[in-house]
Amino acid sequence: MAQQASWRTLCEQKRLAQRESIPKEWIIPVPPLRGHPNVLDVPKYCGLLTEHELAITETTDIDVILEKLRTAEWSSYEVTKAFYKRAIVAHQLTNCLTEIFVDRALERAKHLDDVLAKTGKVVGPLHGLPVSLKDQFTMKGLETIMGYASGIGKYADKDCTIVEILHECGVVPFVRTNVPQTLMWGETFNNVFGRTLNPYNRSLTPGGSSGGEGALLAMRGSPLGVGTDIGGSVRIPSAFCGLYTIRPSYARLPYYGIANSLQGQESISSVLGPMANSLSGVKTFLTSVIGAKPWRLDPMVVPKPWSEAEWELSEHGGVGGQLCFAVMWDNGVVRPHSPLVRAMRMVKEALEKAGHKVIDWEPHRHLGIYKNVELIFAADGNHDYLSECAKSGEPLITTMVPSEEEEASEGYAYEPPYMLCRDLAGHPPVHRNAYELWQLHNEKRELRKSHLDHWEKTVERAGTGRPVDAIISPAVAYAAVPHGLNTDSFYTTLCNALDYTTSAFPVTHVDPELDRPHEPHEFYNDEDKYIYKLYNTDLFAGCPVGLQLIGRMLEEEAVLRMTYIVDDALKKWKESSH
Amino acid sequence: MAQQASWRTLCEQKRLAQRESIPKEWIIPVPPLRGHPNVLDVPKYCGLLTEHELAITETTDIDVILEKLRTAEWSSYEVTKAFYKRAIVAHQLTNCLTEIFVDRALERAKHLDDVLAKTGKVVGPLHGLPVSLKDQFTMKGLETIMGYASGIGKYADKDCTIVEILHECGVVPFVRTNVPQTLMWGETFNNVFGRTLNPYNRSLTPGGSSGGEGALLAMRGSPLGVGTDIGGSVRIPSAFCGLYTIRPSYARLPYYGIANSLQGQESISSVLGPMANSLSGVKTFLTSVIGAKPWRLDPMVVPKPWSEAEWELSEHGGVGGQLCFAVMWDNGVVRPHSPLVRAMRMVKEALEKAGHKVIDWEPHRHLGIYKNVELIFAADGNHDYLSECAKSGEPLITTMVPSEEEEASEGYAYEPPYMLCRDLAGHPPVHRNAYELWQLHNEKRELRKSHLDHWEKTVERAGTGRPVDAIISPAVAYAAVPHGLNTDSFYTTLCNALDYTTSAFPVTHVDPELDRPHEPHEFYNDEDKYIYKLYNTDLFAGCPVGLQLIGRMLEEEAVLRMTYIVDDALKKWKESSH
Repeated sequence: MAQQASWRTLCEQKRLAQRESIPKEWIIPVPPLRGHPNVLDVPKYCGLLTEHELAITETTDIDVILEKLRTAEWSSYEVTKAFYKRAIVAHQLTNCLTEIFVDRALERAKHLDDVLAKTGKVVGPLHGLPVSLKDQFTMKGLETIMGYASGIGKYADKDCTIVEILHECGVVPFVRTNVPQTLMWGETFNNVFGRTLNPYNRSLTPGGSSGGEGALLAMRGSPLGVGTDIGGSVRIPSAFCGLYTIRPSYARLPYYGIANSLQGQESISSVLGPMANSLSGVKTFLTSVIGAKPWRLDPMVVPKPWSEAEWELSEHGGVGGQLCFAVMWDNGVVRPHSPLVRAMRMVKEALEKAGHKVIDWEPHRHLGIYKNVELIFAADGNHDYLSECAKSGEPLITTMVPSEEEEASEGYAYEPPYMLCRDLAGHPPVHRNAYELWQLHNEKRELRKSHLDHWEKTVERAGTGRPVDAIISPAVAYAAVPHGLNTDSFYTTLCNALDYTTSAFPVTHVDPELDRPHEPHEFYNDEDKYIYKLYNTDLFAGCPVGLQLIGRMLEEEAVLRMTYIVDDALKKWKESSH
Repeated sequence: MAQQASWRTLCEQKRLAQRESIPKEWIIPVPPLRGHPNVLDVPKYCGLLTEHELAITETTDIDVILEKLRTAEWSSYEVTKAFYKRAIVAHQLTNCLTEIFVDRALERAKHLDDVLAKTGKVVGPLHGLPVSLKDQFTMKGLETIMGYASGIGKYADKDCTIVEILHECGVVPFVRTNVPQTLMWGETFNNVFGRTLNPYNRSLTPGGSSGGEGALLAMRGSPLGVGTDIGGSVRIPSAFCGLYTIRPSYARLPYYGIANSLQGQESISSVLGPMANSLSGVKTFLTSVIGAKPWRLDPMVVPKPWSEAEWELSEHGGVGGQLCFAVMWDNGVVRPHSPLVRAMRMVKEALEKAGHKVIDWEPHRHLGIYKNVELIFAADGNHDYLSECAKSGEPLITTMVPSEEEEASEGYAYEPPYMLCRDLAGHPPVHRNAYELWQLHNEKRELRKSHLDHWEKTVERAGTGRPVDAIISPAVAYAAVPHGLNTDSFYTTLCNALDYTTSAFPVTHVDPELDRPHEPHEFYNDEDKYIYKLYNTDLFAGCPVGLQLIGRMLEEEAVLRMTYIVDDALKKWKESSH
């Protein structure tokens, strides 16, 4: 009990220290009630941000911000301060931040302004840009909590490689953002910082594990965030928060030195990815980081420069040609809710109108892939999580459903969620030996081969002389869920298992008029049934609906370009149909 | 005992079937005595090959053969038959083959000739070329023995991906070649086919695990062979047999469907690589296989086309510019024998004469890397090997030293070899669990990072504005060893652990006049001492001495081009100094 008291005390102290790191003048004078569901407009009326600061923070095109920074029309100091204020406002409403270090960030911003003033030159392609970082990206001199009480007091003695590179690019890292304990949840709750809320509706989850980034970016509290993804952790919060993101392939971006769960698990690797309110944010991050030749610093990174040829779709008939997309209406494990189906229909119509071809994707061995993934993630019998918890004495969190102590989400009757993934992995999972793990690798290789063959075979149906160029699929089977109920991440995890480069992009919002519940179908399994029952038109009204665009391994350039094509087609289609 | 009888009987039957698959007219009328050490000239005087067949088989430049095949100056049938005869002669002298299928190969050759005659077009860039394959490359309808009695009767129902691609390229796969049981030895001996001998001196090992290829190619019994490498298995036999080869990085060439040991072990992956008597063989194999876009067929292959820019050394100042090489004179684990040191001096002088810079390489954490590798390879506590043996009842081979039943190597007094790798891994090794394996991955990542930083830091010494372009190192610490005594493979395994692209190339031959034994040094460990004592000028006289050229991950184009540069410099230097 002494030990338990100790971890609780440590967490309280950490939270207190966090509150004290917030400048008093940035405290919202009259915060909205917790019951106020949508808080997206609070930054505008709370009175803390000037008109100029509002204008800066509502500039979602990163290239516009970077141009103004390069020409010194805006100083890095004022841009950083504007986003910092807005981030602190966002934090008070959604609990999205972990490390707050205003002075350090403003000092770096000032330094960058000085360099530009003195030399007339920018430090790098992201000169002066404040960037938010998920609470895994170790920074010299800061703690890395990563959702565990054991992280308290763990000060990093050096930057991880991506932070090193972002510094070379001229970035101002300015806040770190919240994650779930273990990182292996599609929500964001831990014993140190508590729960992050979705600013579209605070009784809903912003997703996870990069959920702090999701909430912060939706609030426009950061121009560009960096998350990580082993099963959907940049795509789920992006879908739930209306953002753009990309999950690159395993070996494209530098993960060296990043704190992580299941560290050393290389069967299905976590990757880092940018999250932003615009595709330009995603693109500029990729070209800048890859342009810095990360393979100089991280031995696992493929030495592949940014390819302008691939960006011009050299492997897909060239920009301007007809593409063929395949829509995954349903993966056969969990059927998507009606807003997702509507979003896919919109994309299909928009793409067809733009002259592209759209066919149906036939799901292939999804349950087998899902099971293989879950067995791999659980191959250590949870030893990694448990030993991290044991360091402080905190318990392993086994559900994201709010406790009785925590305020129950409004308007929702909780029913214990059903998690198919636990059935697949076994609970508690078995700790496998090396030979057994190798057999899972053999199975994984067969599944990847089989899926690749399945994709290649679409050349027969695509009509372009090529296999399907990309798959359009839900990122999550639902647009939103109340806290504690986000159980399914298989639409996203499929891409981690197969190492397919995948973006996520916003399409529409839940519309109570258009998005009536589906009639019940013959349920695939208990989770499918449970998720069907979750749908709540009124509760989810107004929430963003995002989709994924799935390409092949190490196809970051082409996947991003095709996402631009889909996004443009959608915008044109919306204009023409309204 | 019944079971033991059974595996022995199966092996005898298999050997008998193999003998019967040899056309009677290709049996050497008067074979040289076993005591005849060097058998390289036997094909010339044994009377089985015509002058024309000798001319074909002694053409080591693959591009010359391919040109004659393309223009139908030589038919694939006659080229295949010539190499087949010579391969059968080589086999009778060195025991290098496993599967022999003359009719099948000649039929395919005939088919290719017909296609060319009818269409005027070649099937692919390797049209009509006979290619030998290590006994792991599954071919539809053939057994895959892979050094285990359990392989007897295991007929493949499809080709592995590389065979599929070689077929697309127009190749005639014509023999399969011997390997050691488990594949994890630098020699070539198993219970089914027995031991492969080195044609330079049959009391010496040709190396392994692609030792059948080594002996066959040295005998000019194949124009191009394909081996695999997880710890040096294409480079060791290439060094011992005077050949050229390359170990590509993990994800460059398609391994899908290849039979393997430790299948599913993905921490340090086995790769496939070409072996040949010329660099053109290595290059033409790489450009042909990569040109076939293997990522269409194998989901693990990086979608990287052959890069002409990298072949022109775009990342190394461009062809014609000054390169900086670093020589690894001694890795600090086992000191190389005197012929290796002489070979490195030759390369240094030749490169300097050609205008390049040569500095000393400082070995970095080699013992730590070695131990990490050995623990990973043994992480299943030998379960994979033992369970494969258990299928037939054959025992696990624990030494490559010839048994008393087997003829003892002439001129050599055996002393039990000392294997440092076993000390490092523990014997018997512990079967680790998934969490423990992940910790080895963490250690591996740190070691790779540390080695990369060490390499990057050479920018300070290189004088080219770049870090050292490549490392020159021994492939093995000795030019040759008697059967059973090849214990050290760490000069090669270093590159597998770090995933550095690495070639091997012949430099000179052991010269009893020039290569006097070194004075004893302060030994690094018992293996170093044991290996020092192995040196035997007279026994090794005339054996080839090969070196490695080590580049970075996924740098196949540049590593190969730099090997050409070294090879050319050496040839010029030799001409000018004689």
